[in-house]
Amino acid sequence: MKIYGDLKSGNCYKVKLLCSLLDIAHEWVDINILAGETTTPSFKAKNPNAKIPLLELEDGNVLMESNAIINYLAFGSQLLPSDRFENAKLQQWQFFEQYSHEPYIAVARFIAKYLRLPKERVAEYNAKQEGGHKALAIMEQQLIKTPFLLGKQITTADISLYAYTHVANEGGFDLSIYPAITAWFERIENQANYVAMPE
Amino acid sequence: MKIYGDLKSGNCYKVKLLCSLLDIAHEWVDINILAGETTTPSFKAKNPNAKIPLLELEDGNVLMESNAIINYLAFGSQLLPSDRFENAKLQQWQFFEQYSHEPYIAVARFIAKYLRLPKERVAEYNAKQEGGHKALAIMEQQLIKTPFLLGKQITTADISLYAYTHVANEGGFDLSIYPAITAWFERIENQANYVAMPE
Repeated sequence: MKIYGDLKSGNCYKVKLLCSLLDIAHEWVDINILAGETTTPSFKAKNPNAKIPLLELEDGNVLMESNAIINYLAFGSQLLPSDRFENAKLQQWQFFEQYSHEPYIAVARFIAKYLRLPKERVAEYNAKQEGGHKALAIMEQQLIKTPFLLGKQITTADISLYAYTHVANEGGFDLSIYPAITAWFERIENQANYVAMPE
Repeated sequence: MKIYGDLKSGNCYKVKLLCSLLDIAHEWVDINILAGETTTPSFKAKNPNAKIPLLELEDGNVLMESNAIINYLAFGSQLLPSDRFENAKLQQWQFFEQYSHEPYIAVARFIAKYLRLPKERVAEYNAKQEGGHKALAIMEQQLIKTPFLLGKQITTADISLYAYTHVANEGGFDLSIYPAITAWFERIENQANYVAMPE
């Protein structure tokens, strides 16, 4: 199985971390987003949405969208609860991540860290702060109550939200005001086979 | 079981349509978004993200995020494949909907239909068109090949994407250039117990 990704991207790092935690053998194919490697004709033949990560199975089937990929890979493991309500709650957090968290926190980080905050995007960067803090406050509220987002056990919902949250400071978000979130970082980083996002 | 929603919202309509197709008994509680009813303290106690739809189960548990809710409700039915890859593919389309489709098509529709395209949002409205057409082209490419997004059978992925796509014209998107999408509308609208989005 091949995974196409760029480890600068938190969405790709989710897949790398999941594979490490579950010790899943795979071939990692580096795709440089900033060099435009997701928009080449050969890559778009695999994923018309021109996005990474992309999972390519041995039978040639492909799967897109980071959260769908990690749920697929975690199937049958304790990272993916099979209980009907628990599984739906896990998806709830992942849809929250893609709609209410990533578009603020990951985009602010991208503008600051990779584009180096160019003048023409300062207003957009500033506008991302409120939505990002709103998402962080919702996570904090849950993590005050439970050690992981779904309860006592780490699940793929934690992996989905950890990816961009633990580097949110690079998007200008002061994480010291969220003690339950920073304590949760440690619980994830103490998991066996945890792998850090490369610098 | 109670469902809190506003049928002007495509995200809420997904839940209404799913309940109708599967004949699921529920109490519908109308929440008027434009009147601010999602941001009252009593509603935010149920959903700190202040969004609808919201599913409240008889045991008091609540579930947010339209796609998580319809997958929960469709559990065990033929609308939700249990096969590992099929289920992941279904989620792939739903994450695509929330990240690459809804923020363009639903937001353009909201600005045009409900805000009546105020001057200060014309630039934003125009900027939504390219991303919306990109999403529609990806759907068209799939629906040329298969009658529903996952293949021969209708699933919750179709419900997720039908909700805002079939009213995309209200956001300025000319759907006549997507014949496979418009043929797919008919296949959905011909399902037993189909219910239309209210005007």
